[in-house]
Amino acid sequence: MMTPPKRAVYLVSRNIHKYLEARQIFLAHGLNLVLLRVKALEIQSENLEDIAKFRASYAAENWGVPVISEDAGLFVDALNGFPGPYSSYAYKTIGCRGILRLLEGVENRRARFRSAVAYCPGPNKQPLCFVGETLGRISTEERGSHGFGFDPIFIPEEGDGRTFAEMTRGEKNRYSHRAKAMRKFVKWYLGAVRSE
Amino acid sequence: MMTPPKRAVYLVSRNIHKYLEARQIFLAHGLNLVLLRVKALEIQSENLEDIAKFRASYAAENWGVPVISEDAGLFVDALNGFPGPYSSYAYKTIGCRGILRLLEGVENRRARFRSAVAYCPGPNKQPLCFVGETLGRISTEERGSHGFGFDPIFIPEEGDGRTFAEMTRGEKNRYSHRAKAMRKFVKWYLGAVRSE
Repeated sequence: MMTPPKRAVYLVSRNIHKYLEARQIFLAHGLNLVLLRVKALEIQSENLEDIAKFRASYAAENWGVPVISEDAGLFVDALNGFPGPYSSYAYKTIGCRGILRLLEGVENRRARFRSAVAYCPGPNKQPLCFVGETLGRISTEERGSHGFGFDPIFIPEEGDGRTFAEMTRGEKNRYSHRAKAMRKFVKWYLGAVRSE
Repeated sequence: MMTPPKRAVYLVSRNIHKYLEARQIFLAHGLNLVLLRVKALEIQSENLEDIAKFRASYAAENWGVPVISEDAGLFVDALNGFPGPYSSYAYKTIGCRGILRLLEGVENRRARFRSAVAYCPGPNKQPLCFVGETLGRISTEERGSHGFGFDPIFIPEEGDGRTFAEMTRGEKNRYSHRAKAMRKFVKWYLGAVRSE
């Protein structure tokens, strides 16, 4: 039987890209992140924080370990926030092309990626939540092959004009919503561990 | 204090149109349907039945009454089933226009409306589920002002070429996915009550 690593935090997710992005942040701070690749109950909400918190609590309850859960979405201004919390389903069905089509001839291409990282220390514990946001715009064509989801059409404001999908994982982690939320969590977590 | 009506079934929903459509079917069979207009926890799933069953159980648990919950979605073939279980969010953000835009120049306009009606008799009881489906196509423009959601762009195969939004509630109830699922439930329910 394997002994679980001490102080390991588990990421409940079935998205390997998400895990690898998060793990890079954790490793940079000397922390381990273990992938808990299970199907956890997910609620419908227009609030990413609620979705992430519910799933973190659910997983901590069912697997008895400290869990983080991350929920993210692309919110396009001219589409009233669509695809938002349902970005993953929109990606699987209409894809990047669908978003480009909905924005054909639309001048306002402003969009933001948002991420909510919820942490639940164990069963019957209250979850905490950390959010990250990256402003940017929707490109006029798909560009790049790194990352996942809507990365090929999102150009972060803080970058050099490349889409997320044109960046390596390390570059994306400099600007991304997910990296910002993960770093907030890691900072809090290290402080909490130190004061124990 | 008001006495609750005997044998009343409660529909947990915040959509008054949905309630009025369902109520018409119930009344036609001599049954009463009460609107339970509360916010009930909703799960994310690509399976309407799971969403409806979870919400019916949740509401029966929390309000202690026999509850039905209905979840519906428009599944467009050429869009890989989009907007599907997230139709309500897609309607609020990109609307009928968004769907028409995604289908501009697309020849295959085949679509189906699906409905899942879940019934939970009370706390700690297992929910049952009844489904209804209506095949049709997406119109090339919005037509009509009745109904709600994507009704102005859906033309049922069984009809006369009008969209759901060009029909009265009674006409829509002849063809609609929701009416089919509700009638299945009512038929089962009347049998169950009789055999008590």
